[in-house]
Order: sequence, then C-alpha cells, then structure tokens
Amino acid sequence: MSLPYLKALTEDQLRGVGIPAPWSFGYLDMVRYGEIDMLQHVNNGVYLKWFENLRVRYFIERGIWTSDGNQPKVVVRNASLHFRAEVKLGQDYILTARTTKMGNTSFTMEYGVWTENGLVTTGDAVLVSIDGNGQKCALPDTARQVFSSMDGAEQS
Amino acid sequence: MSLPYLKALTEDQLRGVGIPAPWSFGYLDMVRYGEIDMLQHVNNGVYLKWFENLRVRYFIERGIWTSDGNQPKVVVRNASLHFRAEVKLGQDYILTARTTKMGNTSFTMEYGVWTENGLVTTGDAVLVSIDGNGQKCALPDTARQVFSSMDGAEQS
Amino acid sequence: MSLPYLKALTEDQLRGVGIPAPWSFGYLDMVRYGEIDMLQHVNNGVYLKWFENLRVRYFIERGIWTSDGNQPKVVVRNASLHFRAEVKLGQDYILTARTTKMGNTSFTMEYGVWTENGLVTTGDAVLVSIDGNGQKCALPDTARQVFSSMDGAEQS
Amino acid sequence: MSLPYLKALTEDQLRGVGIPAPWSFGYLDMVRYGEIDMLQHVNNGVYLKWFENLRVRYFIERGIWTSDGNQPKVVVRNASLHFRAEVKLGQDYILTARTTKMGNTSFTMEYGVWTENGLVTTGDAVLVSIDGNGQKCALPDTARQVFSSMDGAEQS
Repeated sequence: MSLPYLKALTEDQLRGVGIPAPWSFGYLDMVRYGEIDMLQHVNNGVYLKWFENLRVRYFIERGIWTSDGNQPKVVVRNASLHFRAEVKLGQDYILTARTTKMGNTSFTMEYGVWTENGLVTTGDAVLVSIDGNGQKCALPDTARQVFSSMDGAEQS
Repeated sequence: MSLPYLKALTEDQLRGVGIPAPWSFGYLDMVRYGEIDMLQHVNNGVYLKWFENLRVRYFIERGIWTSDGNQPKVVVRNASLHFRAEVKLGQDYILTARTTKMGNTSFTMEYGVWTENGLVTTGDAVLVSIDGNGQKCALPDTARQVFSSMDGAEQS
Repeated sequence: MSLPYLKALTEDQLRGVGIPAPWSFGYLDMVRYGEIDMLQHVNNGVYLKWFENLRVRYFIERGIWTSDGNQPKVVVRNASLHFRAEVKLGQDYILTARTTKMGNTSFTMEYGVWTENGLVTTGDAVLVSIDGNGQKCALPDTARQVFSSMDGAEQS
Repeated sequence: MSLPYLKALTEDQLRGVGIPAPWSFGYLDMVRYGEIDMLQHVNNGVYLKWFENLRVRYFIERGIWTSDGNQPKVVVRNASLHFRAEVKLGQDYILTARTTKMGNTSFTMEYGVWTENGLVTTGDAVLVSIDGNGQKCALPDTARQVFSSMDGAEQS
C-alpha cells in the first residue's frame, strides 16, 4: 500500500530544507499532544526519547540491525542536550543523526532538531556496544563500516 | 517542501487496506522504541496517548480546532481499552477514530488500532466539553455538525 | 536504614483516612511534574501507569511474585477508567487495588484514586495469566489464594 | 495523617547512607514498572524526568516556590547525563540535587542517583530564569540566597 508515512529523508531532501552536510540521516515528524508539558512546550525528557528512537531507525535503515534478528545492543554512557529554542504543539520538526567518532567498543553520535526556526536543539551521546551478558564488546564490523563510509566517523 | 510525512488517511485509503465503513478518519504510524515495555510490546498506557493525539488531529483536520486559536477544550470522563493482540517494535499500525454519539455537553468516540493482523485493539471514550473555568458547557455547533455529517453520530 | 519511604498501607491506615472496606491494599504518593499535561492536570494515560505499577506492588507485597524469580506474567485484556475529578501538581493521592473476580486463566481488579476530595477516579482491568510463550494459562494457586482470602474475590 | 510517605532527606540521613557532603538535598524512591524499557533497565529518558521532578521539590522545600503561587519559572538550557551502572525494577534509589553556580539569569545544578551500588548516574543542568513572556530575567533574591547559603553555590 502507498499511504502517507514517515521515511528516512534523503540527502537531497535534507539539503532542500536547508540542513547542511555532513548530516545525511533524518526524519520529519509532528509533535504529539502527550509530548507537551506544563510549560506548553515539548518536555526536555522527550528529546532523549526522540534521539533514542531515531538511533534505532538509523540502525535499521543502515543495515546495522537486520530483520533476521541480528540486533547488536548498545547502551548510553553519556548524553547531552543543548536547547536553543523550544518546540510547541502544532510544529513539525526534522531530527538528524550522525556518528562522529568510534573507538573499539564505543561510538559518539550527534543529533539535531530542526524546525522552521532552524536548528533548535542539539544533542550528543556516547554509546557502548554490549553483549548478551551486558559486558562491553567490540563494535560489529558492519557498524564500523556504516559509521566510516556514510558518516565519515573518525577512528579514535 | 514535499517530504515523507504523516497525513490523515482518506476513506479510499482506509478501504484499500481493509478498514470498513463507517471508519473515515485514520493515521498510519510506526511503533517507537520508547513505547515498548518490559514485556516487549507496546505498553497499555501508550494506547491512551495514541488516542488522545489522534483526537487532537481529528479536531484540527476537521476544523473543530482552528489555527486562529479557537480550540474548544474537552476532558475525558470515561475511557476503555480492549486488547485482542499485542503490537511490537517494528510494526506499523493505523489508528482510526469516529464519534458515535453526542449529547448537549458530551460525546462518545470510538477508536481502533489496526495492523497486518487486523483490528488488534479497540477503545472508546466519553468526552466532556469544558469552558475556561473548567465547567462543562454546550458542544460548539461546528463540532456537532462534524460529528453528525462526517461520522453519523446520533443525538442522545 | 530507616528513611522516609513509600510502603503499602495497612487496613487501619486506609480506614483512618476514610477509605472503606473492602479496600485493603493501597499506597500514598505525590504527583510528579512529568505527569502533568497541557491542561495542567494529571494526564489520563498516567492513571494506567499508576495502576500497572500498583498491580506489580500488589503481586510483590502479597507474595504472588517472589524474589527468587517466580513472577507469573499477566497481560491486560480490558481496562477502563472513570474520572470524577482531576488531580493536580502538589496533590497527594492514595491508590487502592483489589481483585474482585477470578476465572481459570483471568481475573478482574478494581482500582481507586483518592485525594482530599474523596474518590476521584476509578478503574478496572481484566488480566490474563500467560506462560513463557505468551499463551494463556491457569492462574497460579498462590494467586488464587491471595485473591480469595485477602480480597474475597468470587470464583466465576 | 501519618502515613508512609516520601520526604526530603536530612543531611544526617544522607550521611547515614554514605552520601557525602556537600550533598544536602535528596529523596529516596522506588523504580516504577513503567520506567523500565526493552533492555529491562530504567530508560535513559526517565532520568531527566527524575531530575526535573526533584528540581521542583527542591524549589518547594527550600521556599523558592511558595504555596501562594509565587513560582518563578525556569527552563533548561543544557542537560547532561553520565551513566556508570544501570538501575533495575525492584531497586530503591536516592536522588540528590545541589546548585553549584549562579550567574545573573542562570544557574547550574548537579544531580546524583545512588543505589546500594553507590553513585550510579550523575547529571547536570544549566537552568535559565524566565518571566511570564518567556524572556530571561534576573534570578529572584530568594533563589540566590538558597543557592548560596544552603549549597555554597559560587557567583559566576
């Protein structure tokens, strides 16, 4: 079926709305009623949920997670958010993600939230690859290749 | 800009995926990571958030809420959920809403959650129109006309 | 350590604040900032989370879930909420739960939310016992005994 | 009524469980079912909600927010989280907060999450005082006095 639906934006689409290189992964979405708090704007905790879900989409769309169940687990070691302007009910926003650095067992991602007012929130996270026992383990090769070839992530 | 995005589905689109009359309002969406709980399925509290946001979309798309700030407030008096099958991460779902009854100050809506497994959850809610002081007040005429003409809601 | 903390209320404590028999299980708690929505009251989806967590406490406190990992799983088949008055930031509330009926594989619980304004919200849920494969299975004997002896649940 | 309930911990209580000076504000609480995610631990977005609610308690308990409605508003400009160990269902935790720096319109708070495993997560936030129009404004004197006298916050 061909119904209106969310899809990862292409680089051309990102550039077309003014989101510059090297951002190459993003999604357009709408603010949901339940994301608004007492101050009538998107609650700051919601941004971590947005980035978390975007990260899962990135893993899926870029083949790091596969439908045959090969889904390497990662946990968040550090996360930061920097708010420049608030987002309100009725606004559309684009989320962007990219991987900027990778070590043996961890990697760093950056995130952006874009509205008609430009880049309104940025975030970053250090993520650690864990095995089935919750112990840190080497990043899978597929992930390393994606981070390097598609995002230009530096080896650290 | 013409980017992939969520939009209210048309009646033709709903019928095309097997959602029967009289459902005429719906949205396709994807499950988000943060909506999953310890049991690895969409948490039951999330469904009320889905229906709440869908209700706001219904008010906006059907002209009950207007962009000039005319946004009659409603509160939930009763809400029920009936689960037939769970929804998991990676699944797409369509939410549907319609108004089935209206009184002087309240109205009843029904909701559905549809996946490739058919209608997996149903819900209903009795909503009360309130004024700026939180007192119940008559349903606006615009709302009554929408409920009656677009959903065939019965006057009770 | 003896620090201020939440504990299941005794029947005497419940009666002391005017919560009548046969309610015999409850918790006092405070509204959290993040539970408030745009309308400046506790969001309706939050009540299902309150009842869900209360249900887990009930299972633990009454020995249905044990610390050696014997934790029979249940899923929600139906849930209903009936709102009489809203709850706001700064308010304390008591949640109560009891089991009113049980069949072979399912049982019915009722819930209450009490503030200084009395019983402000009621809820009920039909819960189904499931096994490790997600198939419904007989209620454990421990659960049946608790439901019957402590709450007077009727066999249906 | 004297029922089991959450209360701000005293300095003696904090020291008694091994939380060192200069932490002087904290709350003991239990993990809620709905705070757990697919990875069976407290979701990282939940920590921001914990800190947000703790901040509100700090404002109330320390007289920055008063019950006559004098509740200066603050918004988050930056927030960071550093995870050392996960928190699971069934665990108790103590949250601590203190203000370490203050400027004319903003201040910096630090947060800690403590379990039987010690300090498992730290966070910090830069908060900006805003007026009724959402414009930044001078920190109220009451707040400055609390930050300085009770937490030893440095003027920057």
